[in-house]
Amino acid sequence: MVSAGLDGLVVTHLPNIRYLTGFQGSAGAVVVTRSRCLLIVDFRYLTAARALLAARQDEAVELHHVDWGYDDALVGLLRAERVQRIGVEAAWMAVGRFNRLSAGVAAAAPGHAESRTGCPALVPTERLIERLRLIKDAAEVATLREGAARLSRVAVRLRDFARPGRSEVEVAASIDGALRGEGFERPAFETIVASGPNAALPHARPGTRRLLDGDGVVLDFGGVYDGYCVDLTRTVQVGPWTPDFRRMFDAVAEAQAAAVAAVRPGARASAIDQAARGVLERHGLGEAFGHATGHGLGLEVHEEPRIARPVTGALDPVVEAGMIFTIEPGVYIAGVGGVRIEDDVLVTAEGCEVLTRVL
Amino acid sequence: MVSAGLDGLVVTHLPNIRYLTGFQGSAGAVVVTRSRCLLIVDFRYLTAARALLAARQDEAVELHHVDWGYDDALVGLLRAERVQRIGVEAAWMAVGRFNRLSAGVAAAAPGHAESRTGCPALVPTERLIERLRLIKDAAEVATLREGAARLSRVAVRLRDFARPGRSEVEVAASIDGALRGEGFERPAFETIVASGPNAALPHARPGTRRLLDGDGVVLDFGGVYDGYCVDLTRTVQVGPWTPDFRRMFDAVAEAQAAAVAAVRPGARASAIDQAARGVLERHGLGEAFGHATGHGLGLEVHEEPRIARPVTGALDPVVEAGMIFTIEPGVYIAGVGGVRIEDDVLVTAEGCEVLTRVL
Repeated sequence: MVSAGLDGLVVTHLPNIRYLTGFQGSAGAVVVTRSRCLLIVDFRYLTAARALLAARQDEAVELHHVDWGYDDALVGLLRAERVQRIGVEAAWMAVGRFNRLSAGVAAAAPGHAESRTGCPALVPTERLIERLRLIKDAAEVATLREGAARLSRVAVRLRDFARPGRSEVEVAASIDGALRGEGFERPAFETIVASGPNAALPHARPGTRRLLDGDGVVLDFGGVYDGYCVDLTRTVQVGPWTPDFRRMFDAVAEAQAAAVAAVRPGARASAIDQAARGVLERHGLGEAFGHATGHGLGLEVHEEPRIARPVTGALDPVVEAGMIFTIEPGVYIAGVGGVRIEDDVLVTAEGCEVLTRVL
Repeated sequence: MVSAGLDGLVVTHLPNIRYLTGFQGSAGAVVVTRSRCLLIVDFRYLTAARALLAARQDEAVELHHVDWGYDDALVGLLRAERVQRIGVEAAWMAVGRFNRLSAGVAAAAPGHAESRTGCPALVPTERLIERLRLIKDAAEVATLREGAARLSRVAVRLRDFARPGRSEVEVAASIDGALRGEGFERPAFETIVASGPNAALPHARPGTRRLLDGDGVVLDFGGVYDGYCVDLTRTVQVGPWTPDFRRMFDAVAEAQAAAVAAVRPGARASAIDQAARGVLERHGLGEAFGHATGHGLGLEVHEEPRIARPVTGALDPVVEAGMIFTIEPGVYIAGVGGVRIEDDVLVTAEGCEVLTRVL
């Protein structure tokens, strides 16, 4: 905040609010000034937020209760705190809300002293909290490691779940039940079970199609463990392996291993992506791999860093120890099927630790 | 669009994209000009989007494939279409993206003809698509009516699920299983089971607490049926009714009936809210009812209209036939418990039809 020349910051993105305060509601805001941190919640969450702060013995965070409408409360607080340059999260605050809040903080009463010292203004900022979240601390690493271990125990059972004759939705329900059984709060996203030709759609939703001998089946699922998201994909063949599946599977497995091997502090995200992409290109499957190689994991299932080809104007981050992200190349051939293999890795001082290990 | 003086509109809010095109992916954009409607998707969804448009025989929507990065693709399309005043959704587009796209469309090549006719610009708009979504058409009403009937069949089983000795998470798992059994795609939100003193938290998450005789238990759950959300709450007492529970229950039931009775075309949302609030105030429970009386249902589980006290600067809509929303007053007393009763209503020409009927 200081280096960005701000004397206040309004945080409205819920995962960032949780990161700063532990608060988990579906609405809320945080105002940080150079001396205070205010958590603003509405009636529905007041009791829970008070208990949370007491349990965390967090005296740095002050609780503020909003009656009706967060925007009015924010404007009132910002004016009371007399902050002038107020950062907002440009990636998350809608332009309509930005304009309303800007008008509110700028509306100084006539003759008010503030009108002589310059008008308070909102300033779009980028990644102030996200940069903190990028490197996981010891407690976050422990949580994600435990989540990945539990997710791996679900993956061990995939071949039992994906039996011929069962429908995709039935298999997905088995996975979701196993996630609950392993202590996850909820699936991190809608479980993907894509069988046979459906596996050619990277983000297929499970349907009524029943698994047949000869199908390749992409199973992509994740869980939220103590607030943190882990994510895993395996592709299994029902019945004996077909030559098409073998060719895709071997190429993707090789690409995934190459990308994992490229993960180390100092590597560019694009270099890790290219490690996978280069293998698939050599197998003539470069065109069949249309998505990024990976994404960060944490309080969100898709967060920084993005492990992908560099896009004009986008970040190509340098990987650092303490980052946790997926490695998940895939190939998709319309009318034939698809294969994706995904693990979660923690960047270490030397290279990486693969957190998901399906034994 | 025409009345707003726009010759283009960029739609980025996913439920609005689904409303316009049927597309259900986790990313995408729609560009509407005065002559074209372009659906923009990335690699992951290309096959599914093509199949969707073919199945709908929707020739009005043209499919456009983005290689890397939606923003570059949008700028390119908007420049190719030569639109000058381009609406964006102020409620949903982040200020950072707004600034990037604004810079992109304004960056005319030197000597380009556009530099003489004025610079293309993005214009924040409010509720262009939401206003269309507010009144449900016959197909939407049929879908929501069917969803509400299925949700009501889940509610009939609540007393079986909420037995003494079972934990809140176990009861929630029973409800989620029943939702699947009734054909819902997924829960519309995380199922709430709040027992005993936990029921004093309007948005409690189910925990390990086991139900005891004498507990009041708030059970709030919803399902997504063919994309549309329905929502229902009942509060049951485990074992014989206590005087505290009886008092809260009777007051909330009376308040809920009063609000349902106030629903008719031409009524202000605030008047419906006040119908419930006034009953609770007469029972000395006004302070214990801290949330709004209801919210619209549709492709989102919280959409317009909001049935609430008027807030400065916020809408106080007039209810019209074809709107569908919840009526869900509640009271919450710290250390004692809470009661909430929620049904979904369709505004008819004469009054309303209660879509959720727990028999």
